[in-house]
Amino acid sequence: MRIHGRHYRTIFPAEDGEGVSIIDQTKLPFAFALARLSTMEEAAVAIRTMQVRGAPLIGATAAFGVALAVQRDSSDDALAEAVRVLGATRPTAVNLHWALARVERRLAPLSGRDRVRAAWTEAESICDEDVEQNHAIGIHGARLLADIHGRTGRVVNVLTHCNAGWLATVDWGTALSPIYQAHDAGVPVHVWVDETRPRNQGAALTAYELGAHGVPHTVVVDNAGGHLMQHGRVDVCFVGSDRTTASGDVCNKIGTYLKALAAHDNGVPFYVTLPVTTIDWSLDDGLAGIPIEERAEREVTDLVGIDDDGVVRDVRVVAPGSPAANPAFDVTPARLVTGLVTERGICPASREGIAGLYPDYARSAAE
Amino acid sequence: MRIHGRHYRTIFPAEDGEGVSIIDQTKLPFAFALARLSTMEEAAVAIRTMQVRGAPLIGATAAFGVALAVQRDSSDDALAEAVRVLGATRPTAVNLHWALARVERRLAPLSGRDRVRAAWTEAESICDEDVEQNHAIGIHGARLLADIHGRTGRVVNVLTHCNAGWLATVDWGTALSPIYQAHDAGVPVHVWVDETRPRNQGAALTAYELGAHGVPHTVVVDNAGGHLMQHGRVDVCFVGSDRTTASGDVCNKIGTYLKALAAHDNGVPFYVTLPVTTIDWSLDDGLAGIPIEERAEREVTDLVGIDDDGVVRDVRVVAPGSPAANPAFDVTPARLVTGLVTERGICPASREGIAGLYPDYARSAAE
Repeated sequence: MRIHGRHYRTIFPAEDGEGVSIIDQTKLPFAFALARLSTMEEAAVAIRTMQVRGAPLIGATAAFGVALAVQRDSSDDALAEAVRVLGATRPTAVNLHWALARVERRLAPLSGRDRVRAAWTEAESICDEDVEQNHAIGIHGARLLADIHGRTGRVVNVLTHCNAGWLATVDWGTALSPIYQAHDAGVPVHVWVDETRPRNQGAALTAYELGAHGVPHTVVVDNAGGHLMQHGRVDVCFVGSDRTTASGDVCNKIGTYLKALAAHDNGVPFYVTLPVTTIDWSLDDGLAGIPIEERAEREVTDLVGIDDDGVVRDVRVVAPGSPAANPAFDVTPARLVTGLVTERGICPASREGIAGLYPDYARSAAE
Repeated sequence: MRIHGRHYRTIFPAEDGEGVSIIDQTKLPFAFALARLSTMEEAAVAIRTMQVRGAPLIGATAAFGVALAVQRDSSDDALAEAVRVLGATRPTAVNLHWALARVERRLAPLSGRDRVRAAWTEAESICDEDVEQNHAIGIHGARLLADIHGRTGRVVNVLTHCNAGWLATVDWGTALSPIYQAHDAGVPVHVWVDETRPRNQGAALTAYELGAHGVPHTVVVDNAGGHLMQHGRVDVCFVGSDRTTASGDVCNKIGTYLKALAAHDNGVPFYVTLPVTTIDWSLDDGLAGIPIEERAEREVTDLVGIDDDGVVRDVRVVAPGSPAANPAFDVTPARLVTGLVTERGICPASREGIAGLYPDYARSAAE
């Protein structure tokens, strides 16, 4: 994506070749700032504090974190420790474990400078593949938007939850990739952006991205989507996924399930966009099997915003003394999902649908 | 309710008998402050800016607004103007129109000091009846909570949306009245409080009320309720209503519909609590017939909170330049409502159910 006229990925090797540059997403939308990760520990902190977030980007950051670790100490112990520390940063996104397993498998037979070189190469490959997959997701999803426009002749109203844009991936995004591609192809699109409490990734990041790209959009509170659907003001929903079971249950940002229910109740198609790396082949029942991260209470009780003088401030919004709970994800059962939009095309959210697109993966998972 | 050891209603005649005192709800939860309304115009501003809010309290404030108007000028023109101005403050709550029509009918045949005296008396009667009705709602609703506790032997987890507590009424509240009465009777209750964006009436007002009364509660973002219900952590939902059709459709704070969908999907009982004054006997189809207030964009883009130094601040949370939309209510179809808890008891959310409890009203509406 282009920011201030320059093309950026959300993560990339620093120019000196010894560190990693990221867009610090905790500074957005009020400031666009790069941060440098020089150690594995800094990569772990960046994931945990959500300087980087979004399932694909978490995976890419973890891969670079391993590279930073083995660059300092290429021993087997250091490698194992890096995989352990990085793997414990966030529990829900499966891409984290996928990326770590892939890098670990690649590095296991190597040592010394070969191991270091391979770590960097593997992290960069993960990034390149992510970009390619998201671009392909966009092509398949944009066709859905063009079809709706062809049928109605009107602006296509898309509702999205959280941020599954280029900031959640290395580039392009998952849910927003079809929107960018449709918009660029001249399909008139307008996006309802759920603000996505508690961390406001919609209001802060999705709105920022869409604004920077010139896509018409309107921010609404998370409560509003059902009302909009009841009144025919949403043509289709596109969301991302942090983990998708082999049977099509989708774990995504808390509140996704409520929008899927409303879409189902109003006959609005509800698509989940995801690269293959987000599929957990070991799981069938998302509700029973996916660990839901419980984050800090303060993310609910307090909010970060900018005052009239341009000062970024943290303010408490909850009554003093009242406690808060903060589950970060929920699971949308496959029965509420119209289809999965992946880099290989669109399939029903079912075991058969997924296996049809990914016979190679489904077979090896069954073995 | 008792605040700092003193009993308060949310609205009451000032001690000098010439003005009205209200609890200024825009200052809560960070300060408890009374405000004085000395003119009809101040009453209209208090309703529009939500210094007072909640359907029953809006009605009571409008009635006092008429008293303030005729106290200054008891002519028919001044009375008609007061009804017009106060009636235009907020479009959705039907109590506003009900209270104004009632006061107008009472004052029409009177003039001069009789009219002034009757206006004050009528406003106070509306308040007294509201308190009585809400107390009765609490008795009926508390029985539901005691039944659940009797069946499970566990703490009863109630989810509520927005604020339908004593701050939304003259005293007791609608949705919270059963909770207070069950709690006081020794039934162990815990309340999940939806923060209720954009104005955070849950995080600010419901949490404040429950905390002041000592009822265990936890604030969650509006996105979390579905997840809690999926995991069996909600036994029952209690919400209020700003307008209920004669067929049982419920218009309430934006987001109520999403919680009703989740309750339905998970077999959680979903009760709407309301006094008869909230029923619009002229309407059948809530989705088609109830006007939904669209409030200022700034309520979505900006938030008010308190910083670490105790300063109340307004901060922007939405990406600069991004627009927002702010529909304030939505309609929950009767099919998703388990029952209506009224001052006369509990009935199905259907034309027959409502007419069964209110044969007198239903008959005169049909005439």
